[in-house]
Amino acid sequence: MKKTLLLLLLVAAPALAGEGKWTPQQVLELDPSWLKAQGLEVPPQRLWDPKRGTGLLAGAVNVGGCSGAFISSTGLIITNHHCVFSIVQEHSTPQRDLITQGYLATSREAELPGKGARVQVPRSFTDVTKEVLAAVPAGADDLTRYKAIERKQKELVAACEKRPATRCQVSTFDGGLQYVLVDAVELMDVRLVYAPPRAVGEYGGEEDNWMWPRHTGDFSIIRAYTAPDGSAAPYSDKNEAYKAEFFFPLATQGVKPGDFAMVLGYPGTTYRALLADEMAQRQSRVYPRIIDVYGESIRILEEVGEKDPAGKIAVASTLKSLHNRYKNSGGQLAGLKRGRIIEKQREAEETVARWVEKNGKFPEAQRARTELLSSLKDTDKTFEREFLLSNLRAGARGVSMAVTLSRLSRERAKPDLEREPEFMEREQPRLKDQLEREQKNLFLPAELRLFQAFVKRALALGPEERIAAVDKHFGAKATEKQVAAKVATMYAGTKVLTLADRLAMFGETEAQLTARKDPLLAFGLELAKEVTELDELRDRREGAALRLRPEWRKAVLAQAGKPVAPDANSTLRVTFAKVQGYSPRDGVIYTPQTTLTGMVAKHTGAEPFNVPAKVLAAVEAKKLGPWVDPALKDVPVDFLADADTTGGNSGSPTVNGKGELVGVNFDRVWENVANDFGYNPDVARNVNVDVRYVLWMLDQVEDADALLRELGVRKGPATVKEAR
Amino acid sequence: MKKTLLLLLLVAAPALAGEGKWTPQQVLELDPSWLKAQGLEVPPQRLWDPKRGTGLLAGAVNVGGCSGAFISSTGLIITNHHCVFSIVQEHSTPQRDLITQGYLATSREAELPGKGARVQVPRSFTDVTKEVLAAVPAGADDLTRYKAIERKQKELVAACEKRPATRCQVSTFDGGLQYVLVDAVELMDVRLVYAPPRAVGEYGGEEDNWMWPRHTGDFSIIRAYTAPDGSAAPYSDKNEAYKAEFFFPLATQGVKPGDFAMVLGYPGTTYRALLADEMAQRQSRVYPRIIDVYGESIRILEEVGEKDPAGKIAVASTLKSLHNRYKNSGGQLAGLKRGRIIEKQREAEETVARWVEKNGKFPEAQRARTELLSSLKDTDKTFEREFLLSNLRAGARGVSMAVTLSRLSRERAKPDLEREPEFMEREQPRLKDQLEREQKNLFLPAELRLFQAFVKRALALGPEERIAAVDKHFGAKATEKQVAAKVATMYAGTKVLTLADRLAMFGETEAQLTARKDPLLAFGLELAKEVTELDELRDRREGAALRLRPEWRKAVLAQAGKPVAPDANSTLRVTFAKVQGYSPRDGVIYTPQTTLTGMVAKHTGAEPFNVPAKVLAAVEAKKLGPWVDPALKDVPVDFLADADTTGGNSGSPTVNGKGELVGVNFDRVWENVANDFGYNPDVARNVNVDVRYVLWMLDQVEDADALLRELGVRKGPATVKEAR
Repeated sequence: MKKTLLLLLLVAAPALAGEGKWTPQQVLELDPSWLKAQGLEVPPQRLWDPKRGTGLLAGAVNVGGCSGAFISSTGLIITNHHCVFSIVQEHSTPQRDLITQGYLATSREAELPGKGARVQVPRSFTDVTKEVLAAVPAGADDLTRYKAIERKQKELVAACEKRPATRCQVSTFDGGLQYVLVDAVELMDVRLVYAPPRAVGEYGGEEDNWMWPRHTGDFSIIRAYTAPDGSAAPYSDKNEAYKAEFFFPLATQGVKPGDFAMVLGYPGTTYRALLADEMAQRQSRVYPRIIDVYGESIRILEEVGEKDPAGKIAVASTLKSLHNRYKNSGGQLAGLKRGRIIEKQREAEETVARWVEKNGKFPEAQRARTELLSSLKDTDKTFEREFLLSNLRAGARGVSMAVTLSRLSRERAKPDLEREPEFMEREQPRLKDQLEREQKNLFLPAELRLFQAFVKRALALGPEERIAAVDKHFGAKATEKQVAAKVATMYAGTKVLTLADRLAMFGETEAQLTARKDPLLAFGLELAKEVTELDELRDRREGAALRLRPEWRKAVLAQAGKPVAPDANSTLRVTFAKVQGYSPRDGVIYTPQTTLTGMVAKHTGAEPFNVPAKVLAAVEAKKLGPWVDPALKDVPVDFLADADTTGGNSGSPTVNGKGELVGVNFDRVWENVANDFGYNPDVARNVNVDVRYVLWMLDQVEDADALLRELGVRKGPATVKEAR
Repeated sequence: MKKTLLLLLLVAAPALAGEGKWTPQQVLELDPSWLKAQGLEVPPQRLWDPKRGTGLLAGAVNVGGCSGAFISSTGLIITNHHCVFSIVQEHSTPQRDLITQGYLATSREAELPGKGARVQVPRSFTDVTKEVLAAVPAGADDLTRYKAIERKQKELVAACEKRPATRCQVSTFDGGLQYVLVDAVELMDVRLVYAPPRAVGEYGGEEDNWMWPRHTGDFSIIRAYTAPDGSAAPYSDKNEAYKAEFFFPLATQGVKPGDFAMVLGYPGTTYRALLADEMAQRQSRVYPRIIDVYGESIRILEEVGEKDPAGKIAVASTLKSLHNRYKNSGGQLAGLKRGRIIEKQREAEETVARWVEKNGKFPEAQRARTELLSSLKDTDKTFEREFLLSNLRAGARGVSMAVTLSRLSRERAKPDLEREPEFMEREQPRLKDQLEREQKNLFLPAELRLFQAFVKRALALGPEERIAAVDKHFGAKATEKQVAAKVATMYAGTKVLTLADRLAMFGETEAQLTARKDPLLAFGLELAKEVTELDELRDRREGAALRLRPEWRKAVLAQAGKPVAPDANSTLRVTFAKVQGYSPRDGVIYTPQTTLTGMVAKHTGAEPFNVPAKVLAAVEAKKLGPWVDPALKDVPVDFLADADTTGGNSGSPTVNGKGELVGVNFDRVWENVANDFGYNPDVARNVNVDVRYVLWMLDQVEDADALLRELGVRKGPATVKEAR
C-alpha cells in the first residue's frame, strides 16, 4: 500500500490514507483514481452532486447531536443505542422495562414516538463567507468584530429558518477562513423501531468505554415520519414514513480485514489547526486540571453513592459523563505524548514559517501567528479562574442551575438577536427540558460536598484570579468549617432544587429572581455576572482569533499544496478508512474483529458483562444463521477501522465501496483519543458494530421478520411464528 | 504442525508437543525421531546417560529452591535475579547500595561470597521403591504405613548424606508408584559475579508479575567454588572455580518465533494426577479461601503501611509474597475455568474407569479411586479449621513464630529420625536463620490486626471445628473489643518479637518455654498441640493415599499407552517447547518477544517502571551492538515459549536444540497458572529473559569485558577502558 500511496501523492492525494474528515465539497477535489485505489466503487459524484448540493453522503443524518443513517427508502434510520436511549427510557416503566428488555415494534403501529427526538436531514450547504465578513464594520475592534459576525450568523439562520421545519446553522471553517450556511430539514416525528436489551447496547459499560477489544451492540433502529404530503410535521397517527432519496442498504456479507470502509457523519470539534503552543496549553494545563477537578468530583460522587443506594442511582448519570471526560483527558495526554503530536505540529509550523518567509506571498501569516501566541500568553494568567467558571457543570448542579436561571433572566430582557446564542428563543424548549430532567440527578449530600469543593478551590486562587461572588458570600478567608456551614445554610434555604419552583423561576425576570431572596439564587446571580463578563472577554479574544487565524491558515493550506480537511465543526464529513487492527504496545496486537464467542467469554452474569439470556441461549445453541464470517468461523460483533472520527460521529454509518452499510461507528480506542490534535496512523482506530451482529440479533435472537423483510434481508414468505 | 503431530502419535510421543515435565530417564523413552522433529539436534543420550546417571541435563542445578545453569566450565551459573537477591542484599549498605546499582565483579577477587548460598549439582538418581515399600509392616494401618515410609526415607537420606558435602532426598513419583533417591553435591562456596540494578532485575515489579508483555531482566550470574582438590568446601580464599563437566554455552544468535527450546530445572509441585473431585475441592474451597484470607491480610498490611513509612518497609516483603499467592489463586480459578481442566480430567478419568472395567487387568484401580473420593469427603467437614491452622504464615508473625518455637521444643526431645522432617537436625540451621531474618518483617500494628483477624475467624467456626487454644485464651464468645484488648495484652507481655530472646527460645525445652510465662508463647504452645495433631491426621490420610493412589495411577498410565510425565516434585525435569505467542482473549494477540523500545515506552521514572539512567542512555544513544534481532530491528528483552513449567523453575536455563543457552526462565503468564492442574496448549506460556538482553547489558551497558571473554562471547584483545 505504501508504494501505491507514494505514487498517488504525485497527483495530490491526502498525506495519510485514513487522515481527513472531508467535507462533501472536498470529496470532489480528491483524486478520483486515489479514491478508487482506496476501494471506492461508486463514482465520487454519486457521493456528492455539487449542483444539487446533496448526494449519498446526505443519507447520513444528524440525530440529536449524534449521527445516523437511512437504511431504507421507508425512513428507517440506524444509529447508536446510546443516541436514542431517551426514547427507550421514556416508554419504560417498572412493569414494562424496555431499558432492560429492549424493544421490537412488530408493526408500524407499535413503533414508539420519541418526545423531543429530532432528525436533521441536510438539504443544502451555501458559502456565506462574503456576507459574514462584509458585516464587520471597518476599523472594528475585536469584540465588535466578534459581535458583528455573531449577529450576521444569527440573521442568516433566522432567515433560513423561516421555512417551516427547518434547522439552520452558520458553520465556521478553518478558524474563520470560510463560513457555510447549513440548511437542514428537521423531522419531528421520530419513532423507535428496535432497541436491543441495554446489556447488549451497553455491553462492557464504563469498563470497556474507549477500549478494545469490544463486544458492544451499540445500535438501535428508528423511523422518521412526515405528513402525508412529505413535509416535516410533529407526531400524528396520520403521518407516513419518510421517503429517503439516499440510503445505505445493509451489506449482508460484512467486512474483512483490509477492506475499504468510509464513515459518514457529524464530528463535533477537533483542534488540528491550533498552533503547537496552543496545543501545549491544553496538554500542560487543561487536561491535567480536568483530571484533577473531574477526578475530585468523581471521588465525591462515588463516596456519597457508596453510603446511600438512592443517591447512587441519582448520581449515576453525572458520574458516567464525568468518567467519560476524565478517561478522555488521560487519553489525550497519553496520545499527545505517544504520537509526538505537538512536536510534529511544531515542526510543521516551522516548515510553513520558513516557506512563508522564502515565498513572500503571505505577508500577514507570520504576524498573525505571533499575535495568536501573545494572546495565548494572556490567557495563561487567569487560567485557573476561567477553568473554574467554565466547568461549573462538573460541580454542584444547584449552583450551575442557579447560574443558568440568572443568565437566562438577563438575556431574556434583550431582543432575541442580541442574546447569547444559547439563550435565544429557538433554544428555550431545550433549556427548559434540561432544567426539568436535571431533577432525577439531584442528591443533596453530593451537592453539598461538590459546592464545598468548588468554594475551596475558588478561595485558593491567587490575587489576580479572585471570584468575587465567592469572596462576597463566603469571605476570602473562610475556613473549611465555615464554608461547610454556609453551604449547608444556602442549600437549606433554596428552592432551586425543587422542580416546580425551578420551572417557575425559568420564566422570571432578574428582579423577580432577586425578590425571592433565595440564598443559592442570590449567589448564582452574582456568579452569573462574572460568567457573563468572562464570556465577553472570550468573545473579544475569539474576535481576534477570527481576524488572525485565517491569515495563518491560508499560508498553511497553500504550503500543503493539496486538499487539507478542516477541523471538525459538527458539519457533515466523510472519512476513508481500512478495516485493520493495531499494536497498542510492545508485545501486543489487537486484531480488528471480535466475535460472539469472545462476548460470551466476558460474560460474568453481572453488569456490565451480563449477556441477556436469549442472546446467551442463541450462542450456546450455535444458532448463528448465515451471519458467520468464513475466516472467523463465528458471528463478528465489533470491528476496528482507521477512520478519522471524533465525538459526534456516534451512530455514523460505516459504509463499503458500493455504498452499503457494513457497520455502525460508536467509539474510538483510547490510544486514539488525541487524534483530535493530529492523526497518528499507528493507533487511529474507530470502533464499529459489525452489521452482521445487527443482522444476527434481528434474525436469530429477535426473529424480527417484518423488519428484516423491509431491509431486504429476509426473503420468501413471512415467517409463521409457530414454526420457530 | 498439527499434521506432523498426528503422524508422530503413532510412534508413541506425548499427547501435546509442549506438555510434560519429563524426568531424565523418561527422555530416553521418548521417540528420538519425535524429539528431532521438535528441534532437538543433540542425541538424547547426550542429555542423559543412563549408565552414568548424569548428562547435559545435570548442567541445570538447584540454587536454593530455584533452578540455575552452568554457563562455563569455570563454575559460572546463570539464574534469576530474585533467586540470588539475598547475596546482593547481604553486601549492600546505604553507602554502597548494590541493590539499586547492581554489581559487577571486575576480577575473581571482587566476587561477593553469599552467606548460606548453596548450589546442588545432581550426582545420581536411584530407584529405591522396593526398599521403601519393604519397610511397611504387613497389616499396617495408614498412619503406621506413612510413618514407616517416612522413616525409611529418612534412613536412606541419612546414609546418603554420610558422604561429605552431600544433600539427598527421597522423592515420591506418581503418588507413591515410585520412590527415587536423589544424590547431589552441595557446593557451599557461591559468589556473586553480576547482578543488574534492581530496576532491571525487577522491572515491572508486582504490577507485571505473572503478566505479559514483560520487560524484566530477571537474571544474575554467580560462580561456584570448590577446594583445590575439587571437593565441595565452605568459603576459603584458597578455593578454586568449580570445574563443570556439563554447561550451556551462550547462543549469541538468540531465538526467533517458532524455534525449539527446552527448559531444564527443578519444578516444585503440580496436581495433574489428582482426581477431578480433588481438583474441584481446590477450586471450590482452597483458592476462594486463599483469596479471602490472604486478601484480608493484604488489606490490613496496606492500611497499616499507609499510616507509617517504617511499617510500610517492614511489611513490604510479606505483602509481596501474599500478593503473589493471591494473584496466583485468582489465576488458578480463571485457568481451571478457561481450560475446562476439571471437566477434561473427569472425562479422562471416566475413560480410564471404562477401560479398566473392560480390560479387567487392574482390579484394584476402581476401588482405590472410590476410597480416595470418600476420604476427600471427610476432609470437607473440617476444611475451615484445617485451612486456618495450615495458613498461620498468612497471619501474625508472632503467632506463627510462637508455634514454631513450641513445636521445635517438643520435636527436639525426640531422636532425630523420629522428628517431623522439618525439625530434624539437618534443618536446624535453616530454621534458626529464618527466625533471625524474620526480625526485619515485624511491625507491631500489623501483628495486632492480623492476630485479631485470625481470632475472629477462629471464633466464627462451627461446633465441629473449634480451635481449642483460641476458645481457651479468648473465650468462645469474646466480643471484638475483648479480642482486641486480649491481643494487645499478649503482645505487650511477649518476648517472642525480641530477636535476642527469640534466639534464646530456639534452644529451649518445652518446660523452659512454659516457665517463661510468656503470654504469646503460652498461646503458641497450645496452638502447636493442635497443629501437631492435625499433622498426624494428615499423615494418616497421606498413608492412605500412598496406598491407594498408585493403584489408580497404574491403570491411568497403562491406559495412556505412552510416556506420561509425573507430577512435579522438585526433581530435575526437562520440558520441550517452541517460542510462540498466544491469544489471551478475543481480539488480542500477544506476540512472543518484547524489545528495549517497549521497555523504555513503559518507563515512568517511578517504581516499578524506572529504567536506570545508564540503561536509558544506552538505548537512547542506540548503542545496541551486535544484539539486534534482525526481524525486530531491536534488542529483544523477554520471550514466551510453551514450556511446561511451574514454581521452582525460576532461573531455569532455556536451551536450544544444540544445547546452547537462549534464555533464562523466570515466570509463567497469568492465563497459564492453572497448568499446575492440566496443560492448556492455547495459553501454556513461560516467560524468559532473552540471552541477547543479558549480553546487551553485559556488553553495551556494563562493558563486562573479562566476563564476556570468559563466556567466550567477546574475542580479541582485552578492552582498554580509556578507549570507550
